[in-house]
Amino acid sequence: MKLQAALIEKSNKPRVVILGGGFAGIELAKALRNATVQVVLIDRQNFHTFQPLLYQVATAGIEPSSIIYPFRKIFEDQPDFFFRMADALCVDTAKQILETSIGYIQYDFLVIATGATTNFYGNSEIQAKAIPIKSIEDALALRNTILTNFEKALQIKDETQLNSLMDFVIVGGGPTGVELAGALSELRKHVFPKDYPELNFVNMDIHLIQSGPQLLKGMSNEAADKAKTILERAGIKLWLNCRVKSYDGLKVQLDTGESLCTRTLIWAAGVTGAVVDGLPDGALTGGNRLRVDAYNRVNGFPNIFAVGDIAAMVTKENPEGFAMMAQPAIQQGKWLGQNIRRLLEKKELQPFRYKDQGSMATIGRNKAVADLKIFGHTYKTQGFKAWFIWMFVHLISLIGFRNRLIVFINWMWSYFTYDTGIRLIIGRKKENTPVEHMTEKTVV
Amino acid sequence: MKLQAALIEKSNKPRVVILGGGFAGIELAKALRNATVQVVLIDRQNFHTFQPLLYQVATAGIEPSSIIYPFRKIFEDQPDFFFRMADALCVDTAKQILETSIGYIQYDFLVIATGATTNFYGNSEIQAKAIPIKSIEDALALRNTILTNFEKALQIKDETQLNSLMDFVIVGGGPTGVELAGALSELRKHVFPKDYPELNFVNMDIHLIQSGPQLLKGMSNEAADKAKTILERAGIKLWLNCRVKSYDGLKVQLDTGESLCTRTLIWAAGVTGAVVDGLPDGALTGGNRLRVDAYNRVNGFPNIFAVGDIAAMVTKENPEGFAMMAQPAIQQGKWLGQNIRRLLEKKELQPFRYKDQGSMATIGRNKAVADLKIFGHTYKTQGFKAWFIWMFVHLISLIGFRNRLIVFINWMWSYFTYDTGIRLIIGRKKENTPVEHMTEKTVV
Repeated sequence: MKLQAALIEKSNKPRVVILGGGFAGIELAKALRNATVQVVLIDRQNFHTFQPLLYQVATAGIEPSSIIYPFRKIFEDQPDFFFRMADALCVDTAKQILETSIGYIQYDFLVIATGATTNFYGNSEIQAKAIPIKSIEDALALRNTILTNFEKALQIKDETQLNSLMDFVIVGGGPTGVELAGALSELRKHVFPKDYPELNFVNMDIHLIQSGPQLLKGMSNEAADKAKTILERAGIKLWLNCRVKSYDGLKVQLDTGESLCTRTLIWAAGVTGAVVDGLPDGALTGGNRLRVDAYNRVNGFPNIFAVGDIAAMVTKENPEGFAMMAQPAIQQGKWLGQNIRRLLEKKELQPFRYKDQGSMATIGRNKAVADLKIFGHTYKTQGFKAWFIWMFVHLISLIGFRNRLIVFINWMWSYFTYDTGIRLIIGRKKENTPVEHMTEKTVV
Repeated sequence: MKLQAALIEKSNKPRVVILGGGFAGIELAKALRNATVQVVLIDRQNFHTFQPLLYQVATAGIEPSSIIYPFRKIFEDQPDFFFRMADALCVDTAKQILETSIGYIQYDFLVIATGATTNFYGNSEIQAKAIPIKSIEDALALRNTILTNFEKALQIKDETQLNSLMDFVIVGGGPTGVELAGALSELRKHVFPKDYPELNFVNMDIHLIQSGPQLLKGMSNEAADKAKTILERAGIKLWLNCRVKSYDGLKVQLDTGESLCTRTLIWAAGVTGAVVDGLPDGALTGGNRLRVDAYNRVNGFPNIFAVGDIAAMVTKENPEGFAMMAQPAIQQGKWLGQNIRRLLEKKELQPFRYKDQGSMATIGRNKAVADLKIFGHTYKTQGFKAWFIWMFVHLISLIGFRNRLIVFINWMWSYFTYDTGIRLIIGRKKENTPVEHMTEKTVV
């Protein structure tokens, strides 16, 4: 074991170490502003990611810098706040020390807000060959891969090989899968044929595979049905009640016996808790999440909390914990901030109360579905109105006026020109089976 | 040798293959719009880079996507135009074939517009350890390295090691070196102290090393003197008449006998022609450039041209060819377009006439130097007016209204808030000697 400690100046206030700067982590850190604690935020990136718009980065609609925001900027003037870019390695609950890649960090209160990671359900072959979409790097790799595929397709005449480059298979019919399928179909309709006039985009198939009978699980039947109709009208091939059995980089084997051929399998099929080592196995529950009580306390530890996707707060209404989405994370982060203040003032903790504001998904130009909860009433809307509300809500949720302005310009630009600006190949891409052997042998 | 050909549909018009989509290449391709030729543009990237603003990407001022623009979008509606993303491997001048990473491409006219690459003057150690700033990847790697250095510096108490992370050495007193030094000093003054309140930025030294006695070689003495004054007032340490002898990733050995300690050596000391294989050695002249006549023809080849940085058009006024900068490239690209049209119409070629519009460099907030040539008169200005002109000229030179708008917003934002938005660590960075052993051994 290493002996050095991370250099973070101790104050005479108790130290709250927050592990992870997603929605829950930053809301908690903000809520602790001017509380009598020292806040140390740990993340392996130096920026917060607005995950709901990752799919737009992947489909060349917006710049990565518009949906990510440096932590140091968010907390620039927050007193007794420290950010450290580091990987968490292990918690020593007896000594109250977190081991990280930059050394040991002692804590008085530890809040685990590590979120979730892509769930490949133990299939290492799929993990190696498919493209997840959970981080900004994933989104950029997907963007690079999509564009590189078409550049390569220009050199291919063999129809099967051509289809393997031009076809896309998305696994997972949740919001990410649905939104990605919608965005790809918009590109197929308005953008790619202009960029690649030599390719025939009638040949570009977009498949969306969903294990259950319905899309957008958790939303209303009306939303799910409308989403299905919109996707089908856009020419997306839907595979309901269907699962992927294997993928070798080229052939997607379905459990129905059928198979699809693609070099680009996009994996949006599920997430699993991103656990840190050192907590007892008994703290975990289904989905690799930490079981927490109504105060977000991890079972058995009075000074360790978990918030957001990693926390499973099991209630009568939510026997599996809250959905692994932004809203519960944001609200738990804020709530825990208040509870830690109560704790310090030796007041009674308040059990978390979730205020469901509903959910929505956008599927394409002028098209979205929304189940809104307003003053306890559910208001369901689909089509243009839902799309407008979706845009408004996502725009105001971004951090920083500059980001809002730039995303707004990009959206307006795309809307009026039927174009997207960021079709750039920079950095990492996914290379499956090489295509060199497929090049035509004739001399032109 | 491979036998396959790249799949590019032949038309009955002669084919002009343009190798490289920098300023010269895209201006030429545009100038050939609707000429009776087929244009094939080859580049290893799928986008054009506006190189003069790379230093702002490196210093977190603007998004990469604002200064790069997809070729396919630039030439979206140009008839009989083909873009291919490929590496050029070799020219077979006898068979009139260009060998590329995607196969053979036959040409009737070949235009080499491969530009220039960083010149490390044969020092492989410096090449391995220093950071160049010639491509968008270079600029992003530099941004990531600068920011990562400060994140690491938080864990260091040893003063020498701390300085090695916080000090920056820039080699090369041309526009790139001067602009980079100015931008770093603005960050040191306004941005980094807010981001890293735990670090003492009095300790951050910025060194600028120039081999000759004067900065901004090629500009007027007034501009050079003013640049020197501005940089010195901003606290940049200038080393004139000084060269780097060696660099091991930590110690910069100067030829004056002195040495500097830094983990970040930024190499803006010079460029050299990026030559393609297959041309006779005799075609090359100083600086690894292709000697061309007044019509941009490569000596000895009636159907091979070179334009931009790679072309050395030696004239009485320019015994070493034109400066390797944007203006000669842009003008040669346009001019060659007209000459190729004349060639096809069997008209006499016109010798290239360079219209010098002057040059400029920005050094910081409200500060720049400019030598403008207006109707043959040189108009020298420094300070706020030059800065304003610099901004205007660079803004209108960007491709695409969306890019201009977004860069304008970023510049206004930075100007009024004394802040930059893009302080993000994504992707590749330069890792010199690891810092782990430097971590303090005391337990906190």
